[in-house]
Amino acid sequence: MSHVSVLDCTIRDGGLVNGWDFSQEFVADLYRSLSLANVDVMEVGYKNSPKLVSVENAGPWAFLDEGLLRETIAKKTTTKLSALVDIGRVDENDILPREKSLLDLIRVACYAKDVDKAIDLVNRFHDMGYETSVNLMAVSTVPERDVNEALILLSRCPVDMVYVVDSFGSLYPNDIIHLVRKFQTYLPDKVIGMHTHNNLQLAFANTITGAHQGAKFLDSSVFGMGRAAGNCPTELLVGHLEGALEGHPHPGGPRYSLAPVLDIIERRFVALRNQVEWGYTIPYAVTGLLDEHPRSAIAQRQGPDKDKYVEFYEKFTREDEVATRA
Amino acid sequence: MSHVSVLDCTIRDGGLVNGWDFSQEFVADLYRSLSLANVDVMEVGYKNSPKLVSVENAGPWAFLDEGLLRETIAKKTTTKLSALVDIGRVDENDILPREKSLLDLIRVACYAKDVDKAIDLVNRFHDMGYETSVNLMAVSTVPERDVNEALILLSRCPVDMVYVVDSFGSLYPNDIIHLVRKFQTYLPDKVIGMHTHNNLQLAFANTITGAHQGAKFLDSSVFGMGRAAGNCPTELLVGHLEGALEGHPHPGGPRYSLAPVLDIIERRFVALRNQVEWGYTIPYAVTGLLDEHPRSAIAQRQGPDKDKYVEFYEKFTREDEVATRA
Repeated sequence: MSHVSVLDCTIRDGGLVNGWDFSQEFVADLYRSLSLANVDVMEVGYKNSPKLVSVENAGPWAFLDEGLLRETIAKKTTTKLSALVDIGRVDENDILPREKSLLDLIRVACYAKDVDKAIDLVNRFHDMGYETSVNLMAVSTVPERDVNEALILLSRCPVDMVYVVDSFGSLYPNDIIHLVRKFQTYLPDKVIGMHTHNNLQLAFANTITGAHQGAKFLDSSVFGMGRAAGNCPTELLVGHLEGALEGHPHPGGPRYSLAPVLDIIERRFVALRNQVEWGYTIPYAVTGLLDEHPRSAIAQRQGPDKDKYVEFYEKFTREDEVATRA
Repeated sequence: MSHVSVLDCTIRDGGLVNGWDFSQEFVADLYRSLSLANVDVMEVGYKNSPKLVSVENAGPWAFLDEGLLRETIAKKTTTKLSALVDIGRVDENDILPREKSLLDLIRVACYAKDVDKAIDLVNRFHDMGYETSVNLMAVSTVPERDVNEALILLSRCPVDMVYVVDSFGSLYPNDIIHLVRKFQTYLPDKVIGMHTHNNLQLAFANTITGAHQGAKFLDSSVFGMGRAAGNCPTELLVGHLEGALEGHPHPGGPRYSLAPVLDIIERRFVALRNQVEWGYTIPYAVTGLLDEHPRSAIAQRQGPDKDKYVEFYEKFTREDEVATRA
């Protein structure tokens, strides 16, 4: 565990909860806090193009603008900045060369079937000087052979990191061990990353399980703020690493400090959590248990029947019965 | 995972949250739901003696009365009933022989240093016909040698089950593997149990990790209701087991059904959770990370400074500094 890196994706994945409605002060404050905590990377949003995707009432962090970013992050620390792009939603011409950008790392989210398109983007971003990752989504629902083929292609491209992404929050620690081992086998020269969701209250457990297996880049979000059941909480990961590394100072200086993360939770996230909902609740547990996309659970939580759990669960099991009979 | 048993301890451990203020209707309703879910055992409270311990305004489930229990559980199902006792707080003369009681299992909670007293109680309860367990609390804070000595004594007594109890919610999956293996080594003829707390969002992960390692008796509580950060949620454990055992019907009949658990969460626990607090929050995470008893965090959450996380955290770290310097 002594050489892992922590990437906080609160603004990007948490933005899916509040429509990226974070003020510049909020983002600047979070960057300061994560810097004090010695978090390695902060993901400040999506770098998709508003020309290619319409998101109603989306805040600025859904379509990162370099000018706004510079205005917000007045002074860069050792904490790097990253952005995520989606296949078909990013206009490569929007991306500045790295030396003209505050961003250090561009991450490409894709399904296994689109890995060729992800690699095209990686090649471009790599040539522009960025560190790159490919985040393979929903691996729990893709046939093993398709995942393997995607990994073979990724092994031959210049991507720095490849992420195991538990999009549905349906993976168990044993699945994580299996997947990290597989990724390591196919990608001996790449850094393996972990991005987890908390539908089954396994986000932190899966993240540290992945790390023990050799994953080196660990995603988290403050107070777990992320889509639906949210992510691995930054406070648990940083708190754990601070304790685990005690007496083992990192050659590069001090590593990880919990207090600044607690400070911003206290000042910002308690109030925010009272305004918008994320985190473990029953509909998310149900979609996690059934290995289903959380979108129906998100809709359920936003409607008048948000606590009709049995009805929600039986909708799936009845559909299953029909599908089995058909 | 095909021969585990689930013990739901909502009324007993959850009672620590609401002062055991559950109505008889609530307890009867929960018993019906857990029976429909095929949960193996329901723990209906503490069997301590009000003569030996005073708990202010404690509801009836803190001092189980056989008459009240019979009034509440009109019709016993295949779901067994258990009660917990504490060393020094139980009057053995309060306990009826098993054939005159609705209880099937009496569990003795103790620290390693009191294991001789626990064994005295086990001998008595065993002779009265009960199934018995010893729940070894706070193993994370006891020197390994003392745990080993306690296990040797337990191996020689008639206890049926011995529990790994993560009282502080501070154990990681790797610790669980280590402890379950140790318990198996010292107690080859006993059933190993798991009782976890959710301070680090690891209660479910630790429970299934223990089960994969060979623990056979798994504690949980509905919606995670239990002291402080709560326990492994019954809905996750039952939902997981229902899915994991699909197509592997238990020889004894159908195993585990999630819908009845969701049903009672919807009807009873959502409202209850709005009245009293349990579950993951920062002070509990802090005591978990620091391997401390949650009592200070419980006090913090009940006071005016409940969201002063940094102050709470620094109280411990400052004390540590003083202790180190002294």
